[in-house]
Amino acid sequence: MSGSTYGTIFRITTWGESHGAGVGVVVDGCPAGLSLTEADIQVFLDRRKPGTSRYSTPRKEGDQVEILSGVFEGKTTGTPISLLVRNTSQRSADYSEIASYYRPGHADMTYDMKYGFRDYRGGGRSSGRETIGRVAAGAIAVKILNSLGIQLFTYTRSIGPVKIHPERFQIEETSLNPLCMPDAAAAQEASEYLDGLMKEGDSAGGVIECIIRGMKPGVGDPAFEKLNANLGKAILSIGAVKGFEIGDGFAVARARGSQNNDPYAYTSDGTLEKLANHSGGILGGISDGSDIIFRAAIKPTPSISMEQDTVNKSGENIRVRIKGRHDPIIVPRAVVVVEAMAAITLLDMLFASIPSRMDNLIRFFNK
Amino acid sequence: MSGSTYGTIFRITTWGESHGAGVGVVVDGCPAGLSLTEADIQVFLDRRKPGTSRYSTPRKEGDQVEILSGVFEGKTTGTPISLLVRNTSQRSADYSEIASYYRPGHADMTYDMKYGFRDYRGGGRSSGRETIGRVAAGAIAVKILNSLGIQLFTYTRSIGPVKIHPERFQIEETSLNPLCMPDAAAAQEASEYLDGLMKEGDSAGGVIECIIRGMKPGVGDPAFEKLNANLGKAILSIGAVKGFEIGDGFAVARARGSQNNDPYAYTSDGTLEKLANHSGGILGGISDGSDIIFRAAIKPTPSISMEQDTVNKSGENIRVRIKGRHDPIIVPRAVVVVEAMAAITLLDMLFASIPSRMDNLIRFFNK
Amino acid sequence: MSGSTYGTIFRITTWGESHGAGVGVVVDGCPAGLSLTEADIQVFLDRRKPGTSRYSTPRKEGDQVEILSGVFEGKTTGTPISLLVRNTSQRSADYSEIASYYRPGHADMTYDMKYGFRDYRGGGRSSGRETIGRVAAGAIAVKILNSLGIQLFTYTRSIGPVKIHPERFQIEETSLNPLCMPDAAAAQEASEYLDGLMKEGDSAGGVIECIIRGMKPGVGDPAFEKLNANLGKAILSIGAVKGFEIGDGFAVARARGSQNNDPYAYTSDGTLEKLANHSGGILGGISDGSDIIFRAAIKPTPSISMEQDTVNKSGENIRVRIKGRHDPIIVPRAVVVVEAMAAITLLDMLFASIPSRMDNLIRFFNK
Amino acid sequence: MSGSTYGTIFRITTWGESHGAGVGVVVDGCPAGLSLTEADIQVFLDRRKPGTSRYSTPRKEGDQVEILSGVFEGKTTGTPISLLVRNTSQRSADYSEIASYYRPGHADMTYDMKYGFRDYRGGGRSSGRETIGRVAAGAIAVKILNSLGIQLFTYTRSIGPVKIHPERFQIEETSLNPLCMPDAAAAQEASEYLDGLMKEGDSAGGVIECIIRGMKPGVGDPAFEKLNANLGKAILSIGAVKGFEIGDGFAVARARGSQNNDPYAYTSDGTLEKLANHSGGILGGISDGSDIIFRAAIKPTPSISMEQDTVNKSGENIRVRIKGRHDPIIVPRAVVVVEAMAAITLLDMLFASIPSRMDNLIRFFNK
Repeated sequence: MSGSTYGTIFRITTWGESHGAGVGVVVDGCPAGLSLTEADIQVFLDRRKPGTSRYSTPRKEGDQVEILSGVFEGKTTGTPISLLVRNTSQRSADYSEIASYYRPGHADMTYDMKYGFRDYRGGGRSSGRETIGRVAAGAIAVKILNSLGIQLFTYTRSIGPVKIHPERFQIEETSLNPLCMPDAAAAQEASEYLDGLMKEGDSAGGVIECIIRGMKPGVGDPAFEKLNANLGKAILSIGAVKGFEIGDGFAVARARGSQNNDPYAYTSDGTLEKLANHSGGILGGISDGSDIIFRAAIKPTPSISMEQDTVNKSGENIRVRIKGRHDPIIVPRAVVVVEAMAAITLLDMLFASIPSRMDNLIRFFNK
Repeated sequence: MSGSTYGTIFRITTWGESHGAGVGVVVDGCPAGLSLTEADIQVFLDRRKPGTSRYSTPRKEGDQVEILSGVFEGKTTGTPISLLVRNTSQRSADYSEIASYYRPGHADMTYDMKYGFRDYRGGGRSSGRETIGRVAAGAIAVKILNSLGIQLFTYTRSIGPVKIHPERFQIEETSLNPLCMPDAAAAQEASEYLDGLMKEGDSAGGVIECIIRGMKPGVGDPAFEKLNANLGKAILSIGAVKGFEIGDGFAVARARGSQNNDPYAYTSDGTLEKLANHSGGILGGISDGSDIIFRAAIKPTPSISMEQDTVNKSGENIRVRIKGRHDPIIVPRAVVVVEAMAAITLLDMLFASIPSRMDNLIRFFNK
Repeated sequence: MSGSTYGTIFRITTWGESHGAGVGVVVDGCPAGLSLTEADIQVFLDRRKPGTSRYSTPRKEGDQVEILSGVFEGKTTGTPISLLVRNTSQRSADYSEIASYYRPGHADMTYDMKYGFRDYRGGGRSSGRETIGRVAAGAIAVKILNSLGIQLFTYTRSIGPVKIHPERFQIEETSLNPLCMPDAAAAQEASEYLDGLMKEGDSAGGVIECIIRGMKPGVGDPAFEKLNANLGKAILSIGAVKGFEIGDGFAVARARGSQNNDPYAYTSDGTLEKLANHSGGILGGISDGSDIIFRAAIKPTPSISMEQDTVNKSGENIRVRIKGRHDPIIVPRAVVVVEAMAAITLLDMLFASIPSRMDNLIRFFNK
Repeated sequence: MSGSTYGTIFRITTWGESHGAGVGVVVDGCPAGLSLTEADIQVFLDRRKPGTSRYSTPRKEGDQVEILSGVFEGKTTGTPISLLVRNTSQRSADYSEIASYYRPGHADMTYDMKYGFRDYRGGGRSSGRETIGRVAAGAIAVKILNSLGIQLFTYTRSIGPVKIHPERFQIEETSLNPLCMPDAAAAQEASEYLDGLMKEGDSAGGVIECIIRGMKPGVGDPAFEKLNANLGKAILSIGAVKGFEIGDGFAVARARGSQNNDPYAYTSDGTLEKLANHSGGILGGISDGSDIIFRAAIKPTPSISMEQDTVNKSGENIRVRIKGRHDPIIVPRAVVVVEAMAAITLLDMLFASIPSRMDNLIRFFNK
């Protein structure tokens, strides 16, 4: 099936493997008249670029984006924006051994089962490079959302056992440490934890959190197209994500109704507000205008240099060590991927929400 | 936007409010030649029917399904199956007061924001009755999956602080207690916990777990249409679900790669198997043939008789008690809804996976 | 596959056979706040109702519509509108013989090939009654379009060899004769032509034309979602339609560029206008604000009482006469079906066109 | 809206303008294991390449395709195939004048109305170069169809007043003359007709016909996804197409039922066959296994060097001659575009038809 297109009105189509000619995305449904340059997109790609710290792979991936279409004299034309990132740092030889066995925790076996064979070089389409197209498209979505007054803040909430502490939370800190934690002390602690794992050849997981501020109310639909359902799909479609929760998430299972309900009150100037936000900004699948808050659980990097049990294609049970340098943690580089997918989803649903009321339609068309 | 249709090939469209003429679903894309009677569907509807225990509302909802189309001489014809359940036990008067204020934890406010007004009777489209169509369609999906050798087991994993215990796990027990727990002792304990909450006029949340056995490998797509992403959307589209996790879920955030990777081995008869299933039966978004396992976090019933802060439409901050009898817990009645949405999703993606290989296609068409 | 849902934002799902419990449609994505009663829809259903003249079957089809959901206190709520028309005048016995052979010009054979068997009573899903859901949904679409200043005029342009004459064209005449021709003399002539055919037990085809006035410019997309492409699909999805053309249609094949291009000019008050409309109101797939004009070719009723060659299921070549009274012409009753499908398509694309410009979006959301 | 993606299971996304960096397509949902090289695609691109005769523009468009992803060791991997054709022969200066006025018959005005401005160089996205992506994707679809025993024959049926003659019909002739007519004499006559028009600075239209042989029966759906409806949309989405008809098409409007119905008979070896094919291989929206035949009406090239009335952006009524050399006829180069869109549609619907019967599904999955 066609699984590489996402979105209904603002719609992206990604393509590319880690070892082909390149990776890219076609962004369709972008409104005309948005100022857009390659630099706007490059900023986002640089946030996921490897080789920027000792916790990310030293492979040099230039990841320079080229706009192939859809922009004329610095503005989007309303037609599809095709973005290309050429693959540069490919050493296919590194992967030749992988062809002969299934790496635990990777999609090697399931690709073979589905397609009959696979492009074994660097994981092919299941490579982390698949996310480059998402991030490039997300840069555009974020730019549009910002122009409508909507901001996204995405960061590492925990790495292994190390969590950020609410009292030390500083959103500006996120971009100052390589782990993208908005808490300098937690980042330092997590860094030491990772150093220990690296010595053992092991890897760590973590949790990413995203806060959306300034969201318009009334976005999302009552039944299958709930805003939280679409955010969930978007985030769970990122490789390595094993869990998604919104608002209080799994904690609601142990809460009582009297704790979990968000009371309403009018402020002194007559504004309606919620006195709490356990729901994470969404009720009945529809945004309520308060902050949307969600979290994603990211599994540890499956490529580890510790010895593991697996099988080869000659029918033997073998023990392997995955060679090459790999990130001991996926989380920091996934932060911008989570933000990108959230932005694309929000924008698409924002567009879809426009024709929900006759009065708005009449105002729009009979202007 | 049109948010009431779900699925691409096996596609359902639900409609109806708690206090209109009825609720229903159109099931499109059901293969021809499936034996189907109203009794097949009624069994599933009865699993979500209220009034069957002291933990569910005593409103009498008959919920008798009528097949309006798509079945001829006891077999599906391949054309849309329209299913209708008339609303019977409606006392709109009970809800007249609700029109004047916003119930905390409900979608009253967001509906008003989105649509400009709302059908305030019983929550309208955000009512739990919206799930009747899902369950009716799910009954059909389960029947087809069963005929292909795929089974679903869905049950309550926890209620408030009470969890089922692995050593007492008995799947047959699920249908023997009103809380749908596969552990009689836990069901007893949870029952006492709920009795206490009911005295206080409060409510509880919980976790539902689903195991899919006999799943075909190779189902799901590498990028946006990962099987886990679609299961996540399906489950998160059910009202009251605040979190979704697959396999080890949020626990992966604290795990190490060496613990989280599932090793492979050949059995003595040469069958490839995984020695663990931390991934929950899916790798790279594609089923691997082992059990698929996921969990959903369900929030406490928002309708509680304890006093709560809210606002009315006259601009006043008020305190309210939600009148009427309401379930102190949503979880047991949501079990079959989770199963239905999982089955619909699995079937749709199973169909979508067919054209993934040239050899299969040539075999299929040149039979 | 799921072929019973149409549209992306304004989306309809039809269901039902001629001899099941009923037929119906779910209209999803209808904006909230539209005044809507069953009478609004009944007017359209009555336009396709049989038994109103000697050219349509005397079967009494009551075709009374019931609104099952989505309307509260006389206004649409924004949630799905489910419409039901019970089948009443069913005499299945009339069709028992048809089960044994394939009627020429009908879909009997192709249904058997696709599904392995068929509901042979009255053509099942391929019956003209399948269009009831389309017409009911179209009534809603037309009402919304009208409130935005857009009008549709649909009529019979020709029956067999008899065409309406431009100089006698009177749109009001359309509803005054049973053949829906906006030319009283042509209607009289066509009537005599049909009388002759009926005596022979034969049937006639014809052409339906639709003019859309007041269309907003800028609707439709440059590539696959051209407005004309979607209108074409909508109309060609109506049973018995064998051709579709827009503007000058097939006549362009013999025209020269200098004749076919529509010149532009400013009027004395500075308004931009086209001096001709060979293009039928659409250029590059996008509406230009002038009248949209298209035509559909309708084949003769396949059910004729003349003797025909066919085969039975016992492997014999046989000659048959289709029993029962059938319309000698489909065209007049199809006029409202064409209008309905056009309206649904226009509305859906109108909604889809909203987010095409940043300036409009900023104005809409930052109001 | 996102109008650049087409298809549900076999899905293509095209992008690119005549004067950007290039044009291309992402083909998603291509089955794994298909042999595919750039040469397979180049053959199709060369069929639409300009500059091959005096009836097509002498601009040198190299149109060399590059496969960027989805193919590994000569076989498709099942993941998206990204195809890129760089724009080479761009002389933007030629188009600077066009920026100031609206060319009659082009989409200049409608683009401005929809998007607020336009990429005026060479028509931007409304350029004929938009079809390169379609043709490249079509080459893949045709290759798959061929491997399933399905053949497409597409050719010019008429140019202006010159039609091919049934008695001179030779399908092999199609590739031997630059007008793609399967009738050498008609090609000669049409050639003279075009020479005359070129002297006057005018242009001609025509009709393209496509025959699909070996089509599987049972493909297409009863309601909105009729095979003919989807073919119609596919063909009408090609710029310059103003009409579409299947089988006898518009001629059915003047036919009688007794002439239009296709009788059935068993051949001496018991095979069921139709004794005529007025329906064009489709009944009730479903293929019947006989030849599918459809036609498309193509308008004359709108760019003509004769003087035309139009307006400029300074508010003046002006007269213009479109400079540069343009094809006096679109038809021959559109032949392969029609074939490509037909093939993509057929393949997508063929895939969608697979899960229509329980017996087939059980056979497929329980193999």
